Amino acid sequence: MPRATTARPPAPHPPEGEACHTSQHLCMPEDSRQRAARRLAIARGHLESIRRSLEDPDVYCVDVLRQIKAVQGALDGAASVVLRGHLEAHVATAATRGDAQDMVDELMDVLKYI
Amino acid sequence: MPRATTARPPAPHPPEGEACHTSQHLCMPEDSRQRAARRLAIARGHLESIRRSLEDPDVYCVDVLRQIKAVQGALDGAASVVLRGHLEAHVATAATRGDAQDMVDELMDVLKYI
Amino acid sequence: MPRATTARPPAPHPPEGEACHTSQHLCMPEDSRQRAARRLAIARGHLESIRRSLEDPDVYCVDVLRQIKAVQGALDGAASVVLRGHLEAHVATAATRGDAQDMVDELMDVLKYI
Amino acid sequence: MPRATTARPPAPHPPEGEACHTSQHLCMPEDSRQRAARRLAIARGHLESIRRSLEDPDVYCVDVLRQIKAVQGALDGAASVVLRGHLEAHVATAATRGDAQDMVDELMDVLKYI
Repeated sequence: MPRATTARPPAPHPPEGEACHTSQHLCMPEDSRQRAARRLAIARGHLESIRRSLEDPDVYCVDVLRQIKAVQGALDGAASVVLRGHLEAHVATAATRGDAQDMVDELMDVLKYI
Repeated sequence: MPRATTARPPAPHPPEGEACHTSQHLCMPEDSRQRAARRLAIARGHLESIRRSLEDPDVYCVDVLRQIKAVQGALDGAASVVLRGHLEAHVATAATRGDAQDMVDELMDVLKYI
Repeated sequence: MPRATTARPPAPHPPEGEACHTSQHLCMPEDSRQRAARRLAIARGHLESIRRSLEDPDVYCVDVLRQIKAVQGALDGAASVVLRGHLEAHVATAATRGDAQDMVDELMDVLKYI
Repeated sequence: MPRATTARPPAPHPPEGEACHTSQHLCMPEDSRQRAARRLAIARGHLESIRRSLEDPDVYCVDVLRQIKAVQGALDGAASVVLRGHLEAHVATAATRGDAQDMVDELMDVLKYI
């Protein structure tokens, strides 16, 4: 995976245990991680089905477009799970930790993409 | 794959050979099919990497959001290939075949999703 | 208005009268023009209301975001009217006129934006 | 303007003065209000130009689509200003006030629209 190494804002006062596993940085809440992983596994299966359907010379363009759109919807759902976890565990607590400006800058940047 | 069975507009006067393999309905141009399949295969691999990265308890929400967005960009690219093939092979030729209204209705419907 | 002067594809065989007013280039169908204009007038009024609401120091961010989104939806509706007219009058007839490749290139370019 | 009356989360411990003008509820930061208002005024002028351009029977569909898209970009910019102000003044401080869950629910709901 082409990892984007993100400069994470420092978290001198780590949030509650459910949000972070080390004292070094912010981590993804366990529940979000598992739910997002399940959704991505389903999206991957759907994507593989579409790819296989393209081996059929009779496949119709508009059917393929609709299927790709369905996968995009599933990925939106996965991103939504991750975003909610991030807002709850990291953004809403930012003023407490003292890194509000960094967290908001980072979030505004990533929201451009969603 | 949850196939959406699309009511395809009849094509009484099938377009040139490169666009359709049977006289029964419109088919996807061969070149679009192959290029879209390659892009979907790459997107599927990327998706699997993201899913695996979620096994790491230290993964950061914002990195996951960025990776999901990159896959969505790849899917946009695949959809773009399919759409271009559809416009060239089926929509631009619709008046010649006499099914312009059906083709435009169908396209407007699917563009809502893109 | 910062007019983008678009290099329009030549239309050597102009389509039927309802689609074009001169023999020099493709024009917008009359009905699309009127319906789009009505929608834009409504969106402009809504936009002015939002701007005025921002004079109230008590206005809430999330209410403003929702109102802006409603205007975006209205503009999507106006764009949809224009796009449908374009597909019917200019794209579906492109093979007949002989400018299919130009029309598809131009449409793919503008669809990126929608 | 069709006002959506939003059930605002209670703010028992109002944030610093720059963010709120009464002790009753969360208000939009002054700076965001002014910058968003300026952007909306520009978008409204652009919208009016597009509407007038539709009085010209020779206007071309694709030019209108591009102009509508430019206005949507301007509205995205206005929404971005408002969202940033909201994140800084209201979301990043939510854990301090004790309404994090309400703020995140509301934000996830409005982000669907953006």
